[in-house]
Amino acid sequence: MSRMMILTEADLRVIVRLDLEAVACVENAFLALETKKVAMPPILRLDIPEHRGEVDVKTAYVPGIDGFAIKISPGFFDNPKLGLPSVNGMMVLLSAKTGLIEALLLDNGYLTDMRTAAAGAVAAKYLARNDATIAAIFGAGMQARLQLEALMLVRPIREARIWARNVAKAEALAQALRAELGIDVRAFADGVQAVAGADIIVTTTPSEIPILHAKWLEAGQHVTAMGSDAEHKNEIDPAVLQRATLYVADRLGQTRVLGELHHAIKAGLIDAEAGFAELGQVIAGKSAGRQSRQDITICDLTGTGVQDTAIATLARDHAANAGVGTNFDS
Amino acid sequence: MSRMMILTEADLRVIVRLDLEAVACVENAFLALETKKVAMPPILRLDIPEHRGEVDVKTAYVPGIDGFAIKISPGFFDNPKLGLPSVNGMMVLLSAKTGLIEALLLDNGYLTDMRTAAAGAVAAKYLARNDATIAAIFGAGMQARLQLEALMLVRPIREARIWARNVAKAEALAQALRAELGIDVRAFADGVQAVAGADIIVTTTPSEIPILHAKWLEAGQHVTAMGSDAEHKNEIDPAVLQRATLYVADRLGQTRVLGELHHAIKAGLIDAEAGFAELGQVIAGKSAGRQSRQDITICDLTGTGVQDTAIATLARDHAANAGVGTNFDS
Repeated sequence: MSRMMILTEADLRVIVRLDLEAVACVENAFLALETKKVAMPPILRLDIPEHRGEVDVKTAYVPGIDGFAIKISPGFFDNPKLGLPSVNGMMVLLSAKTGLIEALLLDNGYLTDMRTAAAGAVAAKYLARNDATIAAIFGAGMQARLQLEALMLVRPIREARIWARNVAKAEALAQALRAELGIDVRAFADGVQAVAGADIIVTTTPSEIPILHAKWLEAGQHVTAMGSDAEHKNEIDPAVLQRATLYVADRLGQTRVLGELHHAIKAGLIDAEAGFAELGQVIAGKSAGRQSRQDITICDLTGTGVQDTAIATLARDHAANAGVGTNFDS
Repeated sequence: MSRMMILTEADLRVIVRLDLEAVACVENAFLALETKKVAMPPILRLDIPEHRGEVDVKTAYVPGIDGFAIKISPGFFDNPKLGLPSVNGMMVLLSAKTGLIEALLLDNGYLTDMRTAAAGAVAAKYLARNDATIAAIFGAGMQARLQLEALMLVRPIREARIWARNVAKAEALAQALRAELGIDVRAFADGVQAVAGADIIVTTTPSEIPILHAKWLEAGQHVTAMGSDAEHKNEIDPAVLQRATLYVADRLGQTRVLGELHHAIKAGLIDAEAGFAELGQVIAGKSAGRQSRQDITICDLTGTGVQDTAIATLARDHAANAGVGTNFDS
């Protein structure tokens, strides 16, 4: 018989929020990836093409964190036709000492949203100019909203531009965010105009063809590309990686096969074995981040198991402190 | 908000048993592996050496089965010192159509025990002589017990021999099984004697050095090796594979890297690319099974995700029929 804690999405929305603590939690996870003997196996991926479905399973053990998460992330892209969300999932938190299941985090993808947005804040914190005030967000989904909120935690953002393939969705999101965030948020029909004069550009789409082009970029801009988490996804023109002063991966072993780097390698623009900094190395001070106001920096986020382990243990600790959740014996 | 069914180990022990239905369920899973476009990605494995811990995550999608399982199997081998079982785990059953989580099977490893034992029955059904009456079981753990029970479902077993490194444990298990199963069960201190005259030999240990040797084998015997599910485990002298008339893998891609075949390849006795039959091919009639009473056959079981998907959907269906389980909204 073992006892575990069950936390529902409603529980988790109360105790885990996109705030500076979540950002610090994810920042520490990336730091650990560089400074500790983290065990992070390759992502397990199952495809079910007949239902346009895919499932990723991620995990990572971080020495010094007493639990580790195994995260199940299904994405089934015909679900909206059935009135269901495309993305779902849960995390299982196990004891790193005994392997016993400590908690089931039935988050329907909420914690992934949080840790993904937090990674965007970490990328901007280390790579964007300190005085970045204008953000251009590509995409009009949940991460478009969250990435903007994340940027506002670490940079004095006063203006945001929303570009999406579907202009009406961009308009609707801009209107909602204008009301919620109290800053100037406008939809842009043309990507090139959204990028002109922006300080930070974040791409948050599932696009399979580039939506951000090298010739659009200006000196001093920072780009975070977080939409590509699978071989076929590609938001960034491979030439952007050549144009950038600095390319930083969340995990180089992943971005070479799943991220924007993958497409630059495939296009023959970058050598498959070329070395690049990882975000954790920049945080640890082992690799240089932005060196000047003129640098064009790019951060390629594919999502890592250490982020899941970090946010899952944060959730468990907050649940214990708040007395939230349901105990379950099995 | 989504609704899922939670089934505890106690629930599952009532509704899933080691019986001919479970054997047929696993047999069909192996058949599907050969005859359908099954998606079964490589096992995700995480090692935590400081706590002698390991976690495997397995999954498989089988066309025609409306759900698929993701199984989390931790093994933490210092747990017994803490009064805890080494092996635990759970399965998550997802809809193959929507990716929504349908059921959490909090089985603490029980369903894995069932599907692993059932695979032993399937191997014996297709590879052991029809008149096999004497079984030699290597190991004294849960699978030693279950593999013997599984053999009794498919062959007229009248006598069993138990060998284990720890003779006292072998004695205790023999005594218990004699009482429970009503057949002649004795412990053997010497492996060679246990094998002499046996019809079926099943190895169920976590051994890292061979415990079954080629020169012990006799014409007509069938060997099922199910203990090796990781690179470092090795129950069978690699020469056994050379001696055998027929070698059958549960999944060749796995046994080449995790199973007994792996060690025969490493020893240079078998070519890394050598072709062998899989159990599903034998079931489908696409590869020959036992051809004569004199054949020495060996089946190398490393454990497959299709077995997990099969037993998890069986459990869900039985739960629905029996009205067992707890609904949970998240």
